[in-house]
Amino acid sequence: MRAVFQQELAEVQDRLVEISELVLDSIRDATTAFNSADVALADKVIAADPTIDELAVELDELSIEILYRQNPVARDLRIVVSALRMSASLERMGDLARHIAQLTRRRYPDHVAPESLRDTFTQMAAEDIHIAELLDQLLRTQDVELADKLIQGDDAVDALHAGVFDAVLSPDWQGEAEQTVDVTLASRFFERFGDHAASIAKKVQYLATGDWVPDDSSV
Amino acid sequence: MRAVFQQELAEVQDRLVEISELVLDSIRDATTAFNSADVALADKVIAADPTIDELAVELDELSIEILYRQNPVARDLRIVVSALRMSASLERMGDLARHIAQLTRRRYPDHVAPESLRDTFTQMAAEDIHIAELLDQLLRTQDVELADKLIQGDDAVDALHAGVFDAVLSPDWQGEAEQTVDVTLASRFFERFGDHAASIAKKVQYLATGDWVPDDSSV
Repeated sequence: MRAVFQQELAEVQDRLVEISELVLDSIRDATTAFNSADVALADKVIAADPTIDELAVELDELSIEILYRQNPVARDLRIVVSALRMSASLERMGDLARHIAQLTRRRYPDHVAPESLRDTFTQMAAEDIHIAELLDQLLRTQDVELADKLIQGDDAVDALHAGVFDAVLSPDWQGEAEQTVDVTLASRFFERFGDHAASIAKKVQYLATGDWVPDDSSV
Repeated sequence: MRAVFQQELAEVQDRLVEISELVLDSIRDATTAFNSADVALADKVIAADPTIDELAVELDELSIEILYRQNPVARDLRIVVSALRMSASLERMGDLARHIAQLTRRRYPDHVAPESLRDTFTQMAAEDIHIAELLDQLLRTQDVELADKLIQGDDAVDALHAGVFDAVLSPDWQGEAEQTVDVTLASRFFERFGDHAASIAKKVQYLATGDWVPDDSSV
């Protein structure tokens, strides 16, 4: 019985990794599409999102089944409950990649971001991809040092996000209202992606330390 | 043993109602502050948010304890797992009220929204307050008809949100970039509030019907 249960916990972890890999593909494709105004790549991201949603629902079902059949206690119970939380965050990360792709599609054949902000969005894209890579490793290894890194990496995205707002609010900003709206939303999507990863990292820390933390406080 | 457990489930429900009432107060105060540029009321909302966060964490701890001690099955298990999800959504709704209050504080003594959009934001405020009231009743009564209403109410906010974007993107829009950014974010916060309520309503439907649903797909 115990062996079956350990196998099921391993299955939960494998599925989290599987979803995190799809999220990594999506954020890589979505930010590349965004930065190069590549509508075909944007469409690929939009088409891939329902798969992430389905896998997250299936993982929830599995977690609930495990709670039902195995009555896990202590750390095992925490792993299963945390999986429910993590799957929700991964699903939202996939949604954010889709939102970035949808902005790209809406503005095509133009770029969403003006020339003056391309560098900033390229840096944010690199940070988000790096965050998704770290998250994938974290879910594979449960290495608490990676969790710390992820929470710090999130600060870098926050700073870039603030930089976009500074640019939009400076007297030099030339954008029309439409571009101001799109850039504001895009920057928020890039930034929220990091928040969700940090939220998952905190859950992994919790599993290691026992300190339960609230969901991240930004939106 | 069974009686103790039923008492604990009732305690979970009571705590969800307690948090939903604080969220109702916060969205009422935040939207009133927003629409009347009332910085004192905005500060009250900002100061109240940590209490909502703490109550959500405490409810999570209680839910995990119940899973640990009682090994609930079937519908009881679903109630406890759903409570974990609902507390996260309620906490985010509190965060959104705080974000609306923070925008109000940042722009004070000016209004965030220009004259031309006051009516729209007043309608969105009324919708969000109505949503929070329905949600409070839903959590008290578990009435599936209220859940249906909540999911429909969310559509009304979505339409108003789209209207704000139409206004900002019209040739008549006179706002500076700063105002365009603030109005874009504000409208998103008002709209997301409804999404989280709809997400909770879907969980209640799930408890009634057994159909598990993914978290809402917007951000």
